[in-house]
Parts: sequence; structure tokens; C-alpha cells
Amino acid sequence: MKISEEERNAVYKTIFARRDVRSDFINRNIPEDTLLRVLTAAHHAPSVGFMQPWDFIVVNEEETKQKIKQGFDQANEHSKAMFSDDKQKEYQKLKLEGILEAPIGICVTCDRERNGPVILGKTIKAEMDLYSAVCAVQNLWLAARAENLGVGWVSIIEDDVLRDALSIPSNIEIIAYLCIGYVTQFKDKPELESAGWLPRRSVDKAIHYNKWSIDED
Amino acid sequence: MKISEEERNAVYKTIFARRDVRSDFINRNIPEDTLLRVLTAAHHAPSVGFMQPWDFIVVNEEETKQKIKQGFDQANEHSKAMFSDDKQKEYQKLKLEGILEAPIGICVTCDRERNGPVILGKTIKAEMDLYSAVCAVQNLWLAARAENLGVGWVSIIEDDVLRDALSIPSNIEIIAYLCIGYVTQFKDKPELESAGWLPRRSVDKAIHYNKWSIDED
Repeated sequence: MKISEEERNAVYKTIFARRDVRSDFINRNIPEDTLLRVLTAAHHAPSVGFMQPWDFIVVNEEETKQKIKQGFDQANEHSKAMFSDDKQKEYQKLKLEGILEAPIGICVTCDRERNGPVILGKTIKAEMDLYSAVCAVQNLWLAARAENLGVGWVSIIEDDVLRDALSIPSNIEIIAYLCIGYVTQFKDKPELESAGWLPRRSVDKAIHYNKWSIDED
Repeated sequence: MKISEEERNAVYKTIFARRDVRSDFINRNIPEDTLLRVLTAAHHAPSVGFMQPWDFIVVNEEETKQKIKQGFDQANEHSKAMFSDDKQKEYQKLKLEGILEAPIGICVTCDRERNGPVILGKTIKAEMDLYSAVCAVQNLWLAARAENLGVGWVSIIEDDVLRDALSIPSNIEIIAYLCIGYVTQFKDKPELESAGWLPRRSVDKAIHYNKWSIDED
């Protein structure tokens, strides 16, 4: 199936306009069919040995969101303290999640034992199943952006908080907790770039030919 | 920036038409500007704390590809032996890589120490940098598909083979080795699905609400 130039440009537009949304969620319902399209796109990610190790726990209950928000708050206090005094001042100005504002949370998990003990393609590199589930996250993120839905990845939270709040069995790995919802805006640049937290690296520095080349940056 | 319905459909078309290509590469040069567009899309993946931990080593030298192919052959023999006798017969019928046929290989890496010892968003979940680099892989894969370029992820290879062949320093993590090139076709379904290796799981089984729900499958 051929992708036209117009279609190609739409893919690039979506990739470059995708943002990690924290501040800009609005309280507007996501239609069920829209959410299902986004999750179906996630489900069509590549997976090692066609293992499809992911699951998606959709969170829309206020009480559950509150538990998760508390978990974030605790982890965030602990995290802030790990930075230098100067950085701590910047850090506490940043809004790093939209757990309560986003209408939906989605926990993406990885069942490392799905489809048996030996998985094609995972025989040498055991982490391939986790990486497959991350590919599902990125498909979800881009599909959501294509639906004009914002997504934010909440990584400042202990797995055990999510495990407890969502009754996730101990043999299931937690990959991501994502907030998803309509937004007031998609910012032009990543928030951490605009805030001067870190600069955008030049893509040229990231590209090497045939051998790793050291580039001081 | 709003994504139109037409653009949205282009994103879904690309996501669903993406394949892991092994058999169908053709010997046609990838223009430099095309490859740069694909790598720039990868570089615009989300990254924890805007860390951008990835690098891309573009492989186009025959000698280097030969080393990598040998590494795959060894790892594949070892891997085959891990399956039951029945599965081994199926396994050896599958073509699992296109290292020599694809004009370009791309090794995606992760510098876990980039931008200092404490990274925003990685304070609790240390693997977030690896997951960021995997998001770059998936951006790359979809951008390539939008350019009508096939990509195959070669996971049946020891990291040390790639490290040696590409002079990758010991502190740099190896995420993926991807083969990329124009193709004779994009197959309708994943090859492992068509070959009956594993079936497609129903997306309904992957979706849970507010709590993990056990579904025997």
C-alpha cells in the first residue's frame, strides 16, 4: 500500500506537533469510538515474536485518579530533593502532570510471560518485550495527536502505587501511566525546552556513520 | 495546530500499514534528504526530562554489514535450539532479517549519562531513558513507512557484536539494530501472523477499566 506525499506530510506534521501535555487539558469527554481507535492503533505496534505483551487499563474513576495523584505528589517531593538548590527552584515551577485534569488515564503494561517462556526474537535480548510495549505507547501518543488529543507521560510515580490503585498482578510489568484528553493548545515547543531546562540537541550530532564518533556536546 | 480528518486518516493508514520487513528489501539507494527526514522524525520523539538520549549510527559499509550478519547467524542458531522440535522446523523456515539486502542499517543507542546524573522524570523510574530511545525507534519506523521505506528490527544478535562492529563505547546502551530500505511490497499482515506462529489477540481483551481484569486467553 503506497503512502502519498500528502499522507506522508500528515505523518510528519503529527510527529512534530506531538507534545507531552501537562497543563493544557480541558474537561471534555473523549467519545468511546475515538478512544477505541487510539487504543487499536497502540495494539498495532510492532511486537517481538508477535507477542503483543501490552494491556491498557483505562482510568476514569475520580477515586482512582486521586490515589494516583497522591502517589505522584509523594514521588515528586522526593524527586525535587535530588536536584541542586538552583535547579529545585526551577523544578517546583514546572507542572509535571495532569492526572486529575485529564478525563482519562491509561496505564500501559507488559505481560512478560505471555505466549510462553520462549519468544521468537527475545531469545538474546530479553528486554524486547518491554520495548514492544513502549512502541505501543508511541503509537498511542501519535494516534491521540492525530485525534487532536493531548497525552502526558507521568513517570514520577512508584510502580507500586499504580499496582495497588489498579490491582495489577505482580507478574505484570508497568510501562507507563498516560494522561489523555482534549487541550486548550498544543505548545509550539516542548515545555522543558521553552523553560530553558535543557536545549534541543542538534540532530547532526546524533547521526554517526558506520562507527560511533565522539562529538563533545 | 489542528490535525484535519484527512491527516488523521493518513496517520492511521501509516500505523496499520507498517510492517517488520525481512524478505522484501530491494537494492535501491535511499536519498540523503529522505534519510535525514526520517532521522529528524526519530529525533523528535518524546524523551524523559528532554534528555534526548539517543544516537543513530547509519551503516552502509558492506564489511560492517557482514560482521553484523555473522553475529545474527550465530545468535540465530543458538536461538533456534531453544524451541521445541516442532517449533524449530517452523522457525528455520522464517526469514528473520534483511541485514545484507537492506541498503542501510541504523543502530539506535541510548546514552544513559547524557545531561548529568539526575534527570527530571527519571528519578523514580530509571528505565525511562531507555524507553525514550524506543519511542525514537517507533517514530523512525512510522516516518520510514510514510516514505514507503520498510524497516526490520534485528533483535537476534548479541549487543557485543554490534558494540564491536560499530565501536560503540561501553557506557552507551544498545537499543535496536534496524534494517531500512525500499521494498517490493508491504505485506497485508505481520509475517508471523500469516505463518500461523501466533494469532492476533483481540484488542478488546487488551482493554481494562479502572482495574486489571483477568481474561483467559
